[in-house]
Amino acid sequence: MGEKIIIVGGVAGGATTAARLRRLDEKAEIIMFERGEYISFANCGLPYYIGGTIAERDKLLVQTVEGMSRKFHLDIRNLSEVIKINRERKTVEVKNLKTEEVYEESYDVLVLSPGASPIKPPIPGIETAESLFTLRNIPDTDKIKSFVDIKKPKKATVVGGGFIGIEMAENLWDLGIEVTLIEMSNQIMAPIDFEMASILHGHLREKGVNLILEDGVESFEQQGKIVKLTSGQFIETDMIILAIGVKPENQLAVSAGLSVGQRGGIQVNEHLQTEDPSIYAIGDAIEVKDYINGQSTQIPLAWPANRQGRLVADHINGIAVRYKGTLGSSIAKVFDMTVASTGNNEKTLKRLGIPYEVVHVHPGSHAGYYPGAFPISLKLIFERETGKIFGGQAVSYDGADKRIDVIATAIKGGLTIFDLPDLELAYAPPYSSAKDPVNMAGYAASNIAEGLVETVQWYEINEIVQKGGLLIDVREPIEREMGYIEGSINIPLGEIRDRLDELPKDQTIYLTCQVGLRGYLGARILSQNGFKVKNLDGGYKTYSSVYE
Amino acid sequence: MGEKIIIVGGVAGGATTAARLRRLDEKAEIIMFERGEYISFANCGLPYYIGGTIAERDKLLVQTVEGMSRKFHLDIRNLSEVIKINRERKTVEVKNLKTEEVYEESYDVLVLSPGASPIKPPIPGIETAESLFTLRNIPDTDKIKSFVDIKKPKKATVVGGGFIGIEMAENLWDLGIEVTLIEMSNQIMAPIDFEMASILHGHLREKGVNLILEDGVESFEQQGKIVKLTSGQFIETDMIILAIGVKPENQLAVSAGLSVGQRGGIQVNEHLQTEDPSIYAIGDAIEVKDYINGQSTQIPLAWPANRQGRLVADHINGIAVRYKGTLGSSIAKVFDMTVASTGNNEKTLKRLGIPYEVVHVHPGSHAGYYPGAFPISLKLIFERETGKIFGGQAVSYDGADKRIDVIATAIKGGLTIFDLPDLELAYAPPYSSAKDPVNMAGYAASNIAEGLVETVQWYEINEIVQKGGLLIDVREPIEREMGYIEGSINIPLGEIRDRLDELPKDQTIYLTCQVGLRGYLGARILSQNGFKVKNLDGGYKTYSSVYE
Ligand SMILES: Cc1cc2nc3c(=O)[nH]c(=O)nc-3n(C[C@H](O)[C@H](O)[C@H](O)COP(=O)(O)OP(=O)(O)OC[C@H]3O[C@@H](n4cnc5c(N)ncnc54)[C@H](O)[C@@H]3O)c2cc1C
Ligand SMILES: Cc1cc2nc3c(=O)[nH]c(=O)nc-3n(C[C@H](O)[C@H](O)[C@H](O)COP(=O)(O)OP(=O)(O)OC[C@H]3O[C@@H](n4cnc5c(N)ncnc54)[C@H](O)[C@@H]3O)c2cc1C
Ligand SMILES: CC(C)(COP(=O)(O)OP(=O)(O)OC[C@H]1O[C@@H](n2cnc3c(N)ncnc32)[C@H](O)[C@@H]1OP(=O)(O)O)[C@@H](O)C(=O)NCCC(=O)NCCS
Ligand SMILES: CC(C)(COP(=O)(O)OP(=O)(O)OC[C@H]1O[C@@H](n2cnc3c(N)ncnc32)[C@H](O)[C@@H]1OP(=O)(O)O)[C@@H](O)C(=O)NCCC(=O)NCCS
Repeated sequence: MGEKIIIVGGVAGGATTAARLRRLDEKAEIIMFERGEYISFANCGLPYYIGGTIAERDKLLVQTVEGMSRKFHLDIRNLSEVIKINRERKTVEVKNLKTEEVYEESYDVLVLSPGASPIKPPIPGIETAESLFTLRNIPDTDKIKSFVDIKKPKKATVVGGGFIGIEMAENLWDLGIEVTLIEMSNQIMAPIDFEMASILHGHLREKGVNLILEDGVESFEQQGKIVKLTSGQFIETDMIILAIGVKPENQLAVSAGLSVGQRGGIQVNEHLQTEDPSIYAIGDAIEVKDYINGQSTQIPLAWPANRQGRLVADHINGIAVRYKGTLGSSIAKVFDMTVASTGNNEKTLKRLGIPYEVVHVHPGSHAGYYPGAFPISLKLIFERETGKIFGGQAVSYDGADKRIDVIATAIKGGLTIFDLPDLELAYAPPYSSAKDPVNMAGYAASNIAEGLVETVQWYEINEIVQKGGLLIDVREPIEREMGYIEGSINIPLGEIRDRLDELPKDQTIYLTCQVGLRGYLGARILSQNGFKVKNLDGGYKTYSSVYE
Repeated sequence: MGEKIIIVGGVAGGATTAARLRRLDEKAEIIMFERGEYISFANCGLPYYIGGTIAERDKLLVQTVEGMSRKFHLDIRNLSEVIKINRERKTVEVKNLKTEEVYEESYDVLVLSPGASPIKPPIPGIETAESLFTLRNIPDTDKIKSFVDIKKPKKATVVGGGFIGIEMAENLWDLGIEVTLIEMSNQIMAPIDFEMASILHGHLREKGVNLILEDGVESFEQQGKIVKLTSGQFIETDMIILAIGVKPENQLAVSAGLSVGQRGGIQVNEHLQTEDPSIYAIGDAIEVKDYINGQSTQIPLAWPANRQGRLVADHINGIAVRYKGTLGSSIAKVFDMTVASTGNNEKTLKRLGIPYEVVHVHPGSHAGYYPGAFPISLKLIFERETGKIFGGQAVSYDGADKRIDVIATAIKGGLTIFDLPDLELAYAPPYSSAKDPVNMAGYAASNIAEGLVETVQWYEINEIVQKGGLLIDVREPIEREMGYIEGSINIPLGEIRDRLDELPKDQTIYLTCQVGLRGYLGARILSQNGFKVKNLDGGYKTYSSVYE
């Protein structure tokens, strides 16, 4: 073809586009501009280099300018900022940041992968706070790393409980620093729902992180030595990490008259073209279609950037590919635990007014009799009538990643909750159970959809009991010593068939147990004996992650 | 309904059926007969209890007769062997093994889940070999365990390189016993192909296991103190584990005139009914339909037994379910490595004359810059035209289980190799890469199917070179110091564009590198420059697992 293609941004999306473009076309002229010094670096590894888990800085540099230029025969220009797009003339203006020289470069096709930048709101004192950092690239990382190495801070405050905030909290803690984590919402990790995040809240606190929820930064005082919160609380700190989210780098696009969405993401069609068909945009800078609900959204993650880069290169080369939307599969290590999710959460579905059902199960990460198994708190959200899977969430010390990947794959395969029991997953005791946790979630969800059992959720049960509802805890008495729901009475499952005459037929009986399984067994016994019965979904384990 | 249901066999399939039957119908009369003392035990944990990884024997007993009877209101009769089915009268004859009493019990529905028994061929000396064991149940386990505890054998011989043989080899080795593993075929782990098994052969030998392939037991001499092999070799041993496979427990079915397949599995329809619609059969005892190729086969694993038990209970209760066949997803821990697979292997497809393509990739279990990543040797087998996935195989120190589960799910979702790059799997550095290994396998497979690259396989390249083919190794010179393919010449990838004039246009050029990636890059460069070129699939890594 021999087209001239210009790429703006030389990391996840940009570098991927360049590599695939070259594989498809030896003759194309490909210029990749990168504002920073480094291309193709491991953004996702930055927190772990700061914390020392990744020992060598070089490991963060996946490709160098020289190496990648040679391997892929590319014209890579780092320290070169694209400052303007002239759409009519099909040129960009580029500023060489070493020489300050500005020049024009023409293109046949332009690919924008400029990423996103950390949000830095005009909080009073933010400009004068001396040890306040954001984290996006290698220079940011170098700054934080040398600060912690040289200044040896004792106390750090991380503002924002998303991926990067949590990863930074963990990595600073790894360095022996006392960490305060401040999150404005009532939970960390927005992609999951409150009761699932509550497990992580407990874990962070167990580790000694000073977790402050539902509070925001009002101001930074004394050059950032004091963080003043909306609640009035003051936090003393030696350093601050601001990690409250990112905004798309959309200035180039906006000033070229290309549309952006409400939250600033560049708008593209299913071929990832902007309104100008010669200009593609990908990665953190764009708005994508939510794979589940079809709405526009922003999902600034590495998989989408890499996938989109590959697809754009194909489309430029005349291959009829399309990007099908983003599921939002994501995962984070939170100290010793893992949290992973895919698809939509309850909050999103509620906001959109989409009716859904929920099931919580807590099966072991592998066979219980084989050492090292941990329960996985696994949540499935689905449509009752069709069984369509809206999303999955998992929190565990082990095996959460695998189950969410399986659910994400099931969603992409158009499988429903009724198909999950039929997933034939590889089983031996060190890896799973004869019914894998995903099978189990499928069974439990199917039972709800098929009307075999009715459930109530953790947030409903307290009110039910307060209003005089009858809640029977079907665990053994000894289990209740570790905690139980106020107002519940105890009839162990094994006694229920013999004690039916103690139970009322004129009101709904609510059952609870440890994880929901015995409650389900009890519910089957009672409903077949003519009682009205509902089971507390997820049992005491889900309930107590919030209320204890 | 109030039907009377008799179940033969009280472990994986039988106990699952009983539990679900009761959940669906409080009124049914359910009798479960088990020949042995124990029901519902963890067959799959037995080797690990012998090796000491599972410390408590009680952990193997998932349910007790008393506990399960009470929980599910069942009539469970252990030490009770069903010795005959009277189909016309709809009764079974049962022998009480404590009293030797025989009695008849009537049924409306009969469910057979009698399992399979270890194959014990009439090898000369087998009857007089004193310390020869097979492993199927708790008494077998107790025997082996007390033998190793009391007799403290120094040398053990395991005959058979399947799951149980390998697990026993590892567990005896864990006890400090010198282990010889004898396998008649040229590879262990029949579900995977030879070059994948070769990685495991290397690992076993590294661990000090005396692995003997392509040799069989001719006789046991001196009460089993000497194992004589077909090759003439003699092995001295203090104990023998015979683990050369299982045969369906089909006597009851056969003597009742029910059909069994060629290899003895009871034949059932998609509702798991035998020819007699009142008699269901499930688990290791039956023949199933291979999910990929539709042929009859036997897959004696726990997932199918559990799944079938659940489905049979549903079908008995009038729910229109069907069993869709078995994929054969399986997994084993082999010392520090994991081997997992799903679907059909090359051997099966070849035997059936089904044309297929293969791709081998070796991506890291997670981001290379985050500690603890290991390459996963991942093989995908697919149909070129449609992209249909026939099967996947993975061997690694980490992450093999997840990728095979994802592929198994993709197969069940009807996804093709072209869909694998679109799987949006959860990524953070400790768990995966921005392109997950399954994405990567999908990309590489798609490139083959779409004609972007032609490949040759590890078993073809030696002959090609011997016949004068030109093989270029595109790795760096220093990499060749660790080994290279005889007869290959070295042109590093970075130099290839500058040295095109050294290369012939009149013959096919073969490329090789470490894992296949740079060879693919080189192939793209050469083919676009008018050369005929083929890439060695899987590179030196796949090749050397066989030839070094
Ligand atoms: C600390 C951290 C941890 C992360 N962890 C994860 C994780 O675990 N999992 C995950 O999925 N994602 C993670 N991400 C997100 C992931 O890195 C991004 O989604 C991905 O890099 C986006 O790719 P991109 O190409 O859109 O942007 P980037 O990779 O950021 O690349 C954009 C590049 O464009 C350059 N640029 C911008 N404007 C111009 C211009 N005008 N001219 C020239 N160059 C320009 C920028 O300098 C930048 O280098 C993490 C991000 C960070 C910062
Ligand atoms: C050592 C070992 C390790 C294993 N590891 C794995 C693994 O890691 N992963 C995996 O997927 N699978 C594994 N398996 C296989 C798995 O255990 C079986 O596939 C599964 O148990 C089959 O279930 P089933 O109900 O068909 O047979 P079983 O679970 O064997 O139950 C059959 C029962 O029926 C009883 N019985 C037979 N005939 C009669 C009769 N006439 N009257 C009364 N009772 C009768 C038998 O005594 C037996 O207890 C392993 C098996 C063994 C032995
Ligand atoms: C590395 C980077 C430059 C992309 O380069 P890339 O060549 O597309 O990616 P990879 O090196 O992973 O190689 C993938 C290619 O090799 C092929 N491949 C991989 N293994 C193969 C094998 N064993 N045999 C044959 N081909 C193979 C794939 O098919 C793919 O080629 P295709 O796109 O033409 O199908 C870019 O992703 C990058 O800069 N990454 C770092 C930044 C980043 O992603 N940050 C966010 C996460 S931290
Ligand atoms: C344990 C055994 C008796 C089966 O009992 P089971 O009750 O069917 O299985 P489980 O205890 O796993 O429970 C599964 C049931 O609980 C439900 N369930 C699980 N977790 C739940 C939760 N949190 N909330 C509500 N329901 C839940 C499932 O939906 C399923 O019910 P369903 O079949 O009616 O849909 C049987 O599998 C067995 O004997 N296993 C040991 C032998 C064996 O399998 N060996 C081979 C492997 S080592």
